[in-house]
Amino acid sequence: MEKRVVAFGEVMMRLSTPDNQRFTQANHMKTLYAGSEANVVASLAVFGDSAEMVTVVPENDLGLATIDSIRKNGVITDHILIEGDRLGLYFLETGAAQRSSKIVYDRFNSAFSEIKPGSIDWDSIMKEASWFHWSGITPAVSQGAATVCAEAIASANKHGVTVSGDINYRRNLWQYGKSAHEIMPDLIAGTHIIIAGLEDFKNCLSIDEPDYEKACRVVCEKYPQIRKISTTYRETVNATHNKLYGVMWDGRKLSNSQTHDIYPIIDRVGAGDAYMAGLIYGWTHGMNDMETLEFGVAAGVLKHSVEGDVNYCSVDDVKQLAKGENIGKLLR
Amino acid sequence: MEKRVVAFGEVMMRLSTPDNQRFTQANHMKTLYAGSEANVVASLAVFGDSAEMVTVVPENDLGLATIDSIRKNGVITDHILIEGDRLGLYFLETGAAQRSSKIVYDRFNSAFSEIKPGSIDWDSIMKEASWFHWSGITPAVSQGAATVCAEAIASANKHGVTVSGDINYRRNLWQYGKSAHEIMPDLIAGTHIIIAGLEDFKNCLSIDEPDYEKACRVVCEKYPQIRKISTTYRETVNATHNKLYGVMWDGRKLSNSQTHDIYPIIDRVGAGDAYMAGLIYGWTHGMNDMETLEFGVAAGVLKHSVEGDVNYCSVDDVKQLAKGENIGKLLR
Amino acid sequence: MEKRVVAFGEVMMRLSTPDNQRFTQANHMKTLYAGSEANVVASLAVFGDSAEMVTVVPENDLGLATIDSIRKNGVITDHILIEGDRLGLYFLETGAAQRSSKIVYDRFNSAFSEIKPGSIDWDSIMKEASWFHWSGITPAVSQGAATVCAEAIASANKHGVTVSGDINYRRNLWQYGKSAHEIMPDLIAGTHIIIAGLEDFKNCLSIDEPDYEKACRVVCEKYPQIRKISTTYRETVNATHNKLYGVMWDGRKLSNSQTHDIYPIIDRVGAGDAYMAGLIYGWTHGMNDMETLEFGVAAGVLKHSVEGDVNYCSVDDVKQLAKGENIGKLLR
Amino acid sequence: MEKRVVAFGEVMMRLSTPDNQRFTQANHMKTLYAGSEANVVASLAVFGDSAEMVTVVPENDLGLATIDSIRKNGVITDHILIEGDRLGLYFLETGAAQRSSKIVYDRFNSAFSEIKPGSIDWDSIMKEASWFHWSGITPAVSQGAATVCAEAIASANKHGVTVSGDINYRRNLWQYGKSAHEIMPDLIAGTHIIIAGLEDFKNCLSIDEPDYEKACRVVCEKYPQIRKISTTYRETVNATHNKLYGVMWDGRKLSNSQTHDIYPIIDRVGAGDAYMAGLIYGWTHGMNDMETLEFGVAAGVLKHSVEGDVNYCSVDDVKQLAKGENIGKLLR
Amino acid sequence: MEKRVVAFGEVMMRLSTPDNQRFTQANHMKTLYAGSEANVVASLAVFGDSAEMVTVVPENDLGLATIDSIRKNGVITDHILIEGDRLGLYFLETGAAQRSSKIVYDRFNSAFSEIKPGSIDWDSIMKEASWFHWSGITPAVSQGAATVCAEAIASANKHGVTVSGDINYRRNLWQYGKSAHEIMPDLIAGTHIIIAGLEDFKNCLSIDEPDYEKACRVVCEKYPQIRKISTTYRETVNATHNKLYGVMWDGRKLSNSQTHDIYPIIDRVGAGDAYMAGLIYGWTHGMNDMETLEFGVAAGVLKHSVEGDVNYCSVDDVKQLAKGENIGKLLR
Amino acid sequence: MEKRVVAFGEVMMRLSTPDNQRFTQANHMKTLYAGSEANVVASLAVFGDSAEMVTVVPENDLGLATIDSIRKNGVITDHILIEGDRLGLYFLETGAAQRSSKIVYDRFNSAFSEIKPGSIDWDSIMKEASWFHWSGITPAVSQGAATVCAEAIASANKHGVTVSGDINYRRNLWQYGKSAHEIMPDLIAGTHIIIAGLEDFKNCLSIDEPDYEKACRVVCEKYPQIRKISTTYRETVNATHNKLYGVMWDGRKLSNSQTHDIYPIIDRVGAGDAYMAGLIYGWTHGMNDMETLEFGVAAGVLKHSVEGDVNYCSVDDVKQLAKGENIGKLLR
Repeated sequence: MEKRVVAFGEVMMRLSTPDNQRFTQANHMKTLYAGSEANVVASLAVFGDSAEMVTVVPENDLGLATIDSIRKNGVITDHILIEGDRLGLYFLETGAAQRSSKIVYDRFNSAFSEIKPGSIDWDSIMKEASWFHWSGITPAVSQGAATVCAEAIASANKHGVTVSGDINYRRNLWQYGKSAHEIMPDLIAGTHIIIAGLEDFKNCLSIDEPDYEKACRVVCEKYPQIRKISTTYRETVNATHNKLYGVMWDGRKLSNSQTHDIYPIIDRVGAGDAYMAGLIYGWTHGMNDMETLEFGVAAGVLKHSVEGDVNYCSVDDVKQLAKGENIGKLLR
Repeated sequence: MEKRVVAFGEVMMRLSTPDNQRFTQANHMKTLYAGSEANVVASLAVFGDSAEMVTVVPENDLGLATIDSIRKNGVITDHILIEGDRLGLYFLETGAAQRSSKIVYDRFNSAFSEIKPGSIDWDSIMKEASWFHWSGITPAVSQGAATVCAEAIASANKHGVTVSGDINYRRNLWQYGKSAHEIMPDLIAGTHIIIAGLEDFKNCLSIDEPDYEKACRVVCEKYPQIRKISTTYRETVNATHNKLYGVMWDGRKLSNSQTHDIYPIIDRVGAGDAYMAGLIYGWTHGMNDMETLEFGVAAGVLKHSVEGDVNYCSVDDVKQLAKGENIGKLLR
Repeated sequence: MEKRVVAFGEVMMRLSTPDNQRFTQANHMKTLYAGSEANVVASLAVFGDSAEMVTVVPENDLGLATIDSIRKNGVITDHILIEGDRLGLYFLETGAAQRSSKIVYDRFNSAFSEIKPGSIDWDSIMKEASWFHWSGITPAVSQGAATVCAEAIASANKHGVTVSGDINYRRNLWQYGKSAHEIMPDLIAGTHIIIAGLEDFKNCLSIDEPDYEKACRVVCEKYPQIRKISTTYRETVNATHNKLYGVMWDGRKLSNSQTHDIYPIIDRVGAGDAYMAGLIYGWTHGMNDMETLEFGVAAGVLKHSVEGDVNYCSVDDVKQLAKGENIGKLLR
Repeated sequence: MEKRVVAFGEVMMRLSTPDNQRFTQANHMKTLYAGSEANVVASLAVFGDSAEMVTVVPENDLGLATIDSIRKNGVITDHILIEGDRLGLYFLETGAAQRSSKIVYDRFNSAFSEIKPGSIDWDSIMKEASWFHWSGITPAVSQGAATVCAEAIASANKHGVTVSGDINYRRNLWQYGKSAHEIMPDLIAGTHIIIAGLEDFKNCLSIDEPDYEKACRVVCEKYPQIRKISTTYRETVNATHNKLYGVMWDGRKLSNSQTHDIYPIIDRVGAGDAYMAGLIYGWTHGMNDMETLEFGVAAGVLKHSVEGDVNYCSVDDVKQLAKGENIGKLLR
Repeated sequence: MEKRVVAFGEVMMRLSTPDNQRFTQANHMKTLYAGSEANVVASLAVFGDSAEMVTVVPENDLGLATIDSIRKNGVITDHILIEGDRLGLYFLETGAAQRSSKIVYDRFNSAFSEIKPGSIDWDSIMKEASWFHWSGITPAVSQGAATVCAEAIASANKHGVTVSGDINYRRNLWQYGKSAHEIMPDLIAGTHIIIAGLEDFKNCLSIDEPDYEKACRVVCEKYPQIRKISTTYRETVNATHNKLYGVMWDGRKLSNSQTHDIYPIIDRVGAGDAYMAGLIYGWTHGMNDMETLEFGVAAGVLKHSVEGDVNYCSVDDVKQLAKGENIGKLLR
Repeated sequence: MEKRVVAFGEVMMRLSTPDNQRFTQANHMKTLYAGSEANVVASLAVFGDSAEMVTVVPENDLGLATIDSIRKNGVITDHILIEGDRLGLYFLETGAAQRSSKIVYDRFNSAFSEIKPGSIDWDSIMKEASWFHWSGITPAVSQGAATVCAEAIASANKHGVTVSGDINYRRNLWQYGKSAHEIMPDLIAGTHIIIAGLEDFKNCLSIDEPDYEKACRVVCEKYPQIRKISTTYRETVNATHNKLYGVMWDGRKLSNSQTHDIYPIIDRVGAGDAYMAGLIYGWTHGMNDMETLEFGVAAGVLKHSVEGDVNYCSVDDVKQLAKGENIGKLLR
């Protein structure tokens, strides 16, 4: 049986206003279930890989609906805990032109945040896994989530499972009494591939080096198990028009992908997760670093054209964009 | 200037699945802002009365949207506090035929529940008021809410304002360490009109008398300031077909209203609030007790035909139903 | 070429709130184009008959959309005038249970109401016609409309075309300075089949006889060219549940149809027009009076199950209901 | 690992007009993926059982969407074939009141109908199975489907798997040159539980006995492996109001369930499949025959209140209805 | 109490086709209530200012819905007259790319147009006001509206209230027998701030000077009470892509704002009103002329990104755009 | 009576996902009825010309809905055959930015494809016709369709009717045993105006000349009755942004139209048909070749801004774009 890419993190209900409405205008909201790590494994399942999501959903109808939704994407849900009271939520107002998109989070005290150390049998899970993915959102949510994330990373390392982490520092989280500086270094020390930018280095690793390439070098010196570091650069022309490219530190040097001009943006949420999934796919399917980078960026770019958090695009869709073929042509 | 009916309580975002969908089927939810006490004053404002809502909304776009929504109904919003982090929510799945409607609450830790004693200047408010309305949901939410509710009742009594309370005992609330038995008697002791059934008497006042008329007599003996007690009886034929009538203890005897056969039910949430508003309207506009009871019940019945929590029906609409005229006739 | 049923009257834009919303709740309205006489010929076209609508639409995009809509139903639009400024409108709020449906008209000063005598070449039209239908709404709208209606009736009689009139007295119209008593008798004098109730007899023909059968006899004595008189009786249980039957005076006696119990009502607007169309169809396709009456009532009943003003039901659908066969059965 | 209930049959795209529109009125259609056998296993997965669907979907985006949809319900999709060109479809117009609902099928030449004998490895599947379900629709579709169905039944019998069959004779199918009389007896000979009515006995087994109990006796004499025979009786008051009860032949005698009065019907498609799933659930979870019958009928009844083909109701929902508890009550 | 910005003008129902449909394609229309002057005060209320709308709405459910809608925006509605028969309407078809947007007005004979001189107690209103705003649409509608507008301006001047006027000459209006030349000069003579372009100068003031700066000088010579004149210039690349900048004559010289490139345009209706509101806000909150101009233009630009006539953007949103900060960035 | 433009071809139901959703995301699809040739005559009817569609629709409710839809556009439907079982379908997923739009056809075995030679009385039709239009899709569908198309062309030539053909070679069709090389030359030999590109020349006429002008010359030598050849060139910047221009061979030389920059594309399906209709309109209303070319291209460009297959734009709309006037300006 094909080994799985496993991710751990919170899955929330996303509620977004339709037709670019502002919150006060909306009398209905589009709903779906998403989260950074779940978006990564969903994208991999759409690519055809075996992928599993580990999370906690509350013991009510919304929790069950969350599982249905993850399952629909082809992601394995066998180790999801069903306990606790409330599902985390986020409200999204999609901007346009000069008006920014806006997210209002409502995720404190969620079932996920109340996860208890030891409640997930990671060793069973990692036996079936080839890759484990986490993000910096999880340890920011609660001490329990941080501890369980550390347990997962430890187990992954024990079973020889590659670990990727999307550092993704968010100042608004981290409200349970610990700072990122106290928690993140240990988690990163068990991680082989990281997505991180200069702000992440500073806020999580206390590395305040303004040159990205030099910063990567410093990081790798302190965390020698890290094999690759990557991030994307986004130029925001306006809320509907962005430009995007990726960079990858391959352990020795920094490379840039091509830049993609993206308009109109249908939904930019989840683009970083699609990028992460693209990188994982590239590295685990025999692409070299440069091919992987271009594949990852193309995946991130295509995500902007798909509503919702998940990149519902096939490997072929992504490869064609990476090669610049058939872009936007009507396919009959 | 006309004196106001003032209410105090939590206003939540309501998210309901469209077209009788179950939660797992929905990819959008209808949204509006509602709460038991707000529904009462909204109904009175639609009747043409001067009405004000006092509540707390969080300091974000959803809080502002809540105020806009209350204001749209014609309710005064001058003393709403804007502070705290999250808006309480409730999710509604509308049933049909034999399948029940279902509510999933997500209201803990809301901005309203974190209200602090003394934060509302009730004396200013009560100077402009002729009536104050509260419900048993508010003291069940948090100690802060209970205390502020008590402050309001005290101020109302000081200013000679009539006080009504919809006792509405809910077992799932009351999670902050106090029981209804500890809190409710003092609040009821400052209230002149109560909506309460046998369960409310038992759970809030420790009066375990199975006969409603006798129970009312006992309540009035212990709480001599109470002038009227009322409740509605509902026969649930199925989720779309109910029968409803009201009873009123006028201090001396119990009277029953006519029974209304209601199908199809468009939305039964808020019917009790519409009934409460109908009673307040009747008593404050010169109707006698029996007329008031029939007006209240007719208001409650009409609410079932209107989507949302608020009874968007005029005084004429209600009076015609109370008199049995033009029911359901096409009006050109 | 098959001869046509021709109707003359105003076609309006209908704007109705969705999902039983009250006007103040709606942020969109369903739109379609309809009018009493147009509904009759649309129904006949759906039955497969050759049918034509004569009306006036304004010289703007809404006027053209009106024509497209009439044409979609299979109705001939060759003699529609395109002139004038505004399309008449009506706003519909669909009630439920005890809450009535409500119509707000906005039809004054419409392009149709400004029609000028002589502007329609009725003789050309009547040469192709076998039947002409008008309603009492038309002469109530303006002097111009009344005059053109009279021209049509005169031309129909000249060409041996059967004339039907749905008297349909509406107090809110008749605002151009003439009363129904001044205008209607002449029009009825050229009409062979009328749909009218006791109120219509009183308000249009000054016949104030409380017994319908006797009234029909009086009408036929004064208007000897009248062959049949018919009307429907509706019991409104509530806005969603009605009972309906028809009666027909065949020149000698009165007969009643079976009574149909109708719930839930999807849309009752246009039921009378569907009934009229059913009568015309029955008489022009070899049914006897009783069969025609049952066919007409069944058509009117089925209309309640179809959204919009038009009865999108086939002859077979109607016949089966008239015979009581397969009512409501799932057809695969 | 829990053994599975496995079903085999076609899954189609269902396209239904919204809001009771007639086909010519619709400018959009609601879409979902469903089929009689898939509905049964979906219902069982919603109940919490392990369930698998075996089918064929075309090698295009609609085929993949079909799998996603089945998976969302919690049904295992591991042995679905992806081959062929087109997905079968059915169009549904939902009636109301006296107007019937109408289905237009477009399923000929579907990918499923082109399935080839031997293309499913039934022995692997049946090793994991405890129950196999098929319906009479499958052998009616094509010779290939009939043969593969026979292969499945044979394998099930070989592995001691209980077999249920919903005979469901449909005259419009059976167009590939064979009659039901030629194909069905052999399939029924390997089946232990059948859902069948008098028409099914006549058309599939040439048993033309008008008394249901006697007919069951005759069937069981000819097919001694049959343990139970069941069917439902439906009284169609109108398209929105039906009455339903079930009967079960338990090998010795016939029993009737209680009758349920169902209005308003939200969606009656799939009620028979919900009934079948209820029976399977009852028998496999220790209910006796009478409890099973009441559970099955309650499941079928609840299905009418849920949009779509699948009965999204829990075991508790069904049990409460079977016991007559909390019917239609608002659950907070 | 904070003094109010008061506006006077007509509020119409706006009916717009969804999803860029042409009128003939639409089977529903989005509805809202708007008008040039109401848009200005709504925008100011969203900014947090005290603002009041004076208008006339008909005595029916649509009139009441209009008031609810104005109130929702936080605008005071205390002096709105409820009288007359019909609400003015406008139909909007939103274009895209090369296809223009199109408005069909239906506002003649509206309740507002039938306003009678003396029917508004302007002195009471102006006592609470700090600013009065009118537009050239109002005097174009009817003699009554023109007279009441003149009464308002006179009262404002009497009470020392600053007056702004958006000249906005529209050839299609002015059908009641007077020309703009006859009416507008007197109104402008009581106005301190005007929004006007060369066409407005020519058509309303008979000043036919092709150079804007010179024209402003001439206007100020003839109307010495005018303090500022402003207008916007729009380059229409296509219906979805415009460029916009503003110019302001400050009494001595002309200044230009930066140019904003706007795509995609969600809704350009009301952009001029948002600009006007931005100017009023700037001048009344201590900004200098240049800051005010940039604030006004930024407000007008942001309006293009918001559906409907009203600029639902906060002061911070506008300030950030004026400063070029965070444009289109995702805000979490 | 004005002579008609007649077209012959298949009309399908089009089902498209809303809001740029991918197929697996959609729970409803927008539906309409369209086909290349029907789009051409619909566009001409919208321009105001007399136009007729000849096709075959199945004998079911979807077939009747197809006719209603064609009729709505003002196209004559008098010779449509109603026979056979299924309506051809196509599913459309509208892309955005870099993601392509995608069409899944489901048109095999349609009622149209089963048309029988001799089943259309072309001579009657051509007597009323001035122009006949066909496309290369029709002969690719089935031998029957190819034969009936040949019959139509022969009849048109017999009656002196101009024939246009949109060659439109599609590799996925042509599955009935004949190749385009065997069928198309004879059809083209009876055609006076063709729309064709280099691929069409190669695949249908075996002319493999890479220079378009030279290729046109060769085509005209072999098919001397051909008067004009034209095609469009499209640069796909992305799925939402294309550039388009047309070229026309007038028998002697090749001319290019201006290039139009199109963004955002609302719906590009049918743009070629709108172009064809524009050419027919130009030539039949006295434009010269260059005016016709610019009119055709402008029509094709405008189609991109209209949802659906049909170019709902007037002659004035098209002429203004061809002249570069008022592009995208708000029209009041």
